[in-house]
Amino acid sequence: MSETQLRPDGPGPEKTHDQMTSPAADDATVAKDVHLSREFVDKLLEAVRAEDAAGARQICDDLHAADMADLLQVLPARERRKLLNLIQSDIDPELFHEIEGEARGDLYEITPNTQIADAVTELETDEAVYVLEDLRDEDREEVLRALSADDRVAIEESLSYPEDSAGRLMQRDLIALPEFWTVGQTIDLLRSDDADIPDDFYDIFVVDPAHKPVGTVPLSRVMRNQRGVALGHIMEKKPHVIEATADQEEVAYAFTKYHLISAAVVDESQRLVGVVTVDDIVEVIEEEAQEDILALAGVGESASVNESLFEVTRGRFTWLLVNLATAVLASVVIGLFDAAIEQMVALAVLMPIVASMGGNAGTQTMTVAVRGLATKELSATNAARILKRELMIALGNGVLLAVISGLLAWLWFGSPGLGGVFAAAMIFNLLVAGMFGLLVPMGLARVGIDPAIASSVFVTTITDVIGFFAFLGLAALWLF
Amino acid sequence: MSETQLRPDGPGPEKTHDQMTSPAADDATVAKDVHLSREFVDKLLEAVRAEDAAGARQICDDLHAADMADLLQVLPARERRKLLNLIQSDIDPELFHEIEGEARGDLYEITPNTQIADAVTELETDEAVYVLEDLRDEDREEVLRALSADDRVAIEESLSYPEDSAGRLMQRDLIALPEFWTVGQTIDLLRSDDADIPDDFYDIFVVDPAHKPVGTVPLSRVMRNQRGVALGHIMEKKPHVIEATADQEEVAYAFTKYHLISAAVVDESQRLVGVVTVDDIVEVIEEEAQEDILALAGVGESASVNESLFEVTRGRFTWLLVNLATAVLASVVIGLFDAAIEQMVALAVLMPIVASMGGNAGTQTMTVAVRGLATKELSATNAARILKRELMIALGNGVLLAVISGLLAWLWFGSPGLGGVFAAAMIFNLLVAGMFGLLVPMGLARVGIDPAIASSVFVTTITDVIGFFAFLGLAALWLF
Repeated sequence: MSETQLRPDGPGPEKTHDQMTSPAADDATVAKDVHLSREFVDKLLEAVRAEDAAGARQICDDLHAADMADLLQVLPARERRKLLNLIQSDIDPELFHEIEGEARGDLYEITPNTQIADAVTELETDEAVYVLEDLRDEDREEVLRALSADDRVAIEESLSYPEDSAGRLMQRDLIALPEFWTVGQTIDLLRSDDADIPDDFYDIFVVDPAHKPVGTVPLSRVMRNQRGVALGHIMEKKPHVIEATADQEEVAYAFTKYHLISAAVVDESQRLVGVVTVDDIVEVIEEEAQEDILALAGVGESASVNESLFEVTRGRFTWLLVNLATAVLASVVIGLFDAAIEQMVALAVLMPIVASMGGNAGTQTMTVAVRGLATKELSATNAARILKRELMIALGNGVLLAVISGLLAWLWFGSPGLGGVFAAAMIFNLLVAGMFGLLVPMGLARVGIDPAIASSVFVTTITDVIGFFAFLGLAALWLF
Repeated sequence: MSETQLRPDGPGPEKTHDQMTSPAADDATVAKDVHLSREFVDKLLEAVRAEDAAGARQICDDLHAADMADLLQVLPARERRKLLNLIQSDIDPELFHEIEGEARGDLYEITPNTQIADAVTELETDEAVYVLEDLRDEDREEVLRALSADDRVAIEESLSYPEDSAGRLMQRDLIALPEFWTVGQTIDLLRSDDADIPDDFYDIFVVDPAHKPVGTVPLSRVMRNQRGVALGHIMEKKPHVIEATADQEEVAYAFTKYHLISAAVVDESQRLVGVVTVDDIVEVIEEEAQEDILALAGVGESASVNESLFEVTRGRFTWLLVNLATAVLASVVIGLFDAAIEQMVALAVLMPIVASMGGNAGTQTMTVAVRGLATKELSATNAARILKRELMIALGNGVLLAVISGLLAWLWFGSPGLGGVFAAAMIFNLLVAGMFGLLVPMGLARVGIDPAIASSVFVTTITDVIGFFAFLGLAALWLF
C-alpha cells in the first residue's frame, strides 16, 4: 500500500451535488454483459480456432472472473477446452470458485494441482473450501499437502463441517478484540502488517476472555468515534450468532430477516470460530430459490444447463417414471368406468378438463404453501386459518368455473345432465385441490421431507384420481 | 456516543482461539423463532383478549421489528388489530417497513399520520420510500408535509423513479470525497458531528469534480492505511455503477455476480445520487425468486398467505380461466376422434397418460430454460446447442418410457398394436415437450414478455394438444 503526503491546500469535502454536467462516464462500468455478445464471442472463437494464445489472452484479459466464468459456460465444449489450454498460465485464482457446471470440470482437469494450490492460497476460506470439496480425493490430498500449515488446518476444519452448513460458508480470518480495547488501539492494530487481517471485513467482533462473542462493532462506527472510546461502549450487544453446524438455509433466513452484513459463527462450546458474510449468503439464497423452483417442476438438483447430459437425463427420468406410475393410477380409475364412456363418448372428451383444472388449482395452493413454509408465513399456529381461507378461495373459483364449464358442456353436447355432472365434479375437485394443496406440503414438512421436492407428485395424483373419479362416478350414477 | 479513557494496561489483542471452555452463550441470540411458538403466541393472545396493554407491551418489548412483523402476520385479524391498538404508542419505527400483507394495512390504518411521519424520519430513504409508496394519496401528502424539507425532497426524488427501479432502492446519505483527500482527512470528517453521515455504510465513494464516481474505497481499506495516504491511491477503480432507472432485477444480478456490498447509483448525467446496499438486494432476490416460483405455478403476484382473499381469488381465477380455455382446446382435439374412442374405449383410458407425461417433461425443460434465462446461462449464443441437448434428453427418456408404457398397454389391453401406438405417441410427445419447453420461454423473452409468467400455459397447451392428437391420430390411422 503506497503512502502519499497530505495536500493541505485541497478543497474541503464535497458532499452536496454540484450542478455541472459531466461527460459520459467512460471509466465507470455499467454492467452490460458485452462479454456474452455474439460479436465478442465470435472474436474470441476466431482466436481460439487459430490457436492464437496471445490474442485470446488479450481478449479475456480485462474480464472479471465472474464474466470469464459466464463466457466459458456459453462456449461449445471443444472450444472451451482449447481456450483453457491457451490461457492456462494466466488464469485468475477467483475463476476457480466462480466457475460452474461442465466448464468447472474442464478447468480443474487442465490445471495442475500445484496451480490449484496456488489459487487456493489466494482465496478466502469459504471459497477455497468450495474449490476443494469438488476435487477427486487424491487431487484434494495433493492440493492440501501443497498448502501452508495454517491454510491447510483452516480448510480441513471447515471441511469437517457438514455440506451446506455455516461451517463450510465461513471465512476464518476475522478481527476479534476484547471489550476494553479502544477505537485507537483497534485502528493501530488494523494498520499493522499482521497477515491474519482479512482483506475485506465489515464488523469487528467483541469477545469475552473465553472467546465467546459478546458484541459487534460495524466498521463505520469504529471510524465515527474518537480514539479513546472503548469497543464495549459502542458495540451492538446480543449479536446474532450462528452455530457452525447450522444449515445454510437457516443462515440465509437469519441474514434476510435481520438485514445482517456479517455474523459470528461459533462452535459447539460457543467460541467464535469464523464469520459468514452477506455476499456468500446472496449466493445461498439464489441457490435455494433455484433448488425450490426446479424441485417443484420435478427437475431435481443437478439442473443447470451445463450439467452432464447423462446425469440430467437420469434425474428427469426418475421423475417422469414416478409421473407415469401416478398417471397409470388415474387411468385405472378411468378404466373402472369404461362402460359409461362407451355409452357416452362425451365423457372421454370432457374428463381431462376436470383433472387439469384440479391439477392447476392444486399446484397454485401447493406453491403458495411451499413458499409460506420456507418464509415461515405458514406454520402450525395459523394452519387452520389458512386452510379455511384456501377452501373459501376454492369454493369461490369452483362455483364460477362450474357455471362456465357446466354451460359449455350443456351447449356442446346438448345434455343438461352432463352439464350438471361436469359442474358438480369441477367444484368438488377444486375443493379437493385446495385442501390437499395445503395439507400435503404441511404433512411432508412435519415428517421431515422437503415439501418443495415431493409435494407436486402427491398433489397432482390426488387431483387426477379424485377428478376422474368424481366426474365419471357422478356421470355413472346420474346419467344412466 | 460516549467516550472512555484508553486503558493502557489492557492485554494485547487476542486473535487466536484459546482453549478455555465457555459457559452457554446466554446473551448471544441464536435465531430460534421463539416468538412464533404456540406457547408464546398463546401467552400474548391471553393478554390481548384481557385488553392488558402493559402485559402485551412487556411480552413484545424485546422483539426485533422483523420478529414483531412475523408475529403480527400469524395472529388472527381481530386479535392483531386489538394488539396494535394496545401497543400503538410503543411501535418501533422499523416495524413500518418490516411488516407485510394484511397486517401492513392494519398497522397503517390504526396509526395517525403524524406518527407515521415520525417513523419515516427515523428510517433510511429506501425504507421510507417503501412505507410511503403504499399509503393512500391523501395520507402520503399529509405525511410528506409533516417531514423536514430535506427528508421530503429526498423521498420525493426517489418516488419520482419508476417502481422496482434502483432509484427506489437507494439510500441518499453517503460519503463522497475527491481523490486527493487523505485517509486522515476522511477519518476526521467521519468523526465530526455532520448529520448527513449515514448510520451504517461500507464504502467511501471517490468522485471527480463533476460528482461522477471514479472509485470506491472499502472502509476496511481506509482503516488499514496510514493517515497520509490519498483515497485515489487505495480506491478500486472502475466501480460498478448503477443507473437510477435500472430495474431492480438487473441490480440484483450485478450484486450477485460481482459480490458487491454497496454500489453507486447515478442519474442520467452520470452524477452520483445515492447508494444501493446489499441488504436491500437480499430482499429483492428473495422477492424475484418468489415471483418466479409463483408465476410458474400460475398464482400471480399477490400471492402471500396474507393478501386479501378477494385479490387472491381473482388472481388465481384468471389463471384457471386461461387453463380452462386451453383444456377445452385439448378436448376439441379429443372430440375429433370420438368415433375411434367409441370403437376402442382403451384409448380413453390411456390418453391422459400421454398428455400428462408430455406436460411434465415440458415443464421440466421450461423451468430449466426460465432459470437459465434469468441467470444468463442460456442466451441466443448457446441456444442451438441447448436445443440439441434437450432433444437428446427427450429422445433418451422418450425411448425408455415408450418401451415401458408400450409393454404396459399391450399387457393391459392385450393389443400389441395399441402398445405400439402408445409408445410412438410417447416418444413423439416428449420430443415436442423438449423442443417447446425451450423455444417458448426463449421466444417470450425475445418479444419482451416475462417467460416465468407466460411460458407454462403455452407449453402445457402445446403438449396436451399434440399429445392427444398424436396418440388418437396414430390410433385412428393404424388400428382401424
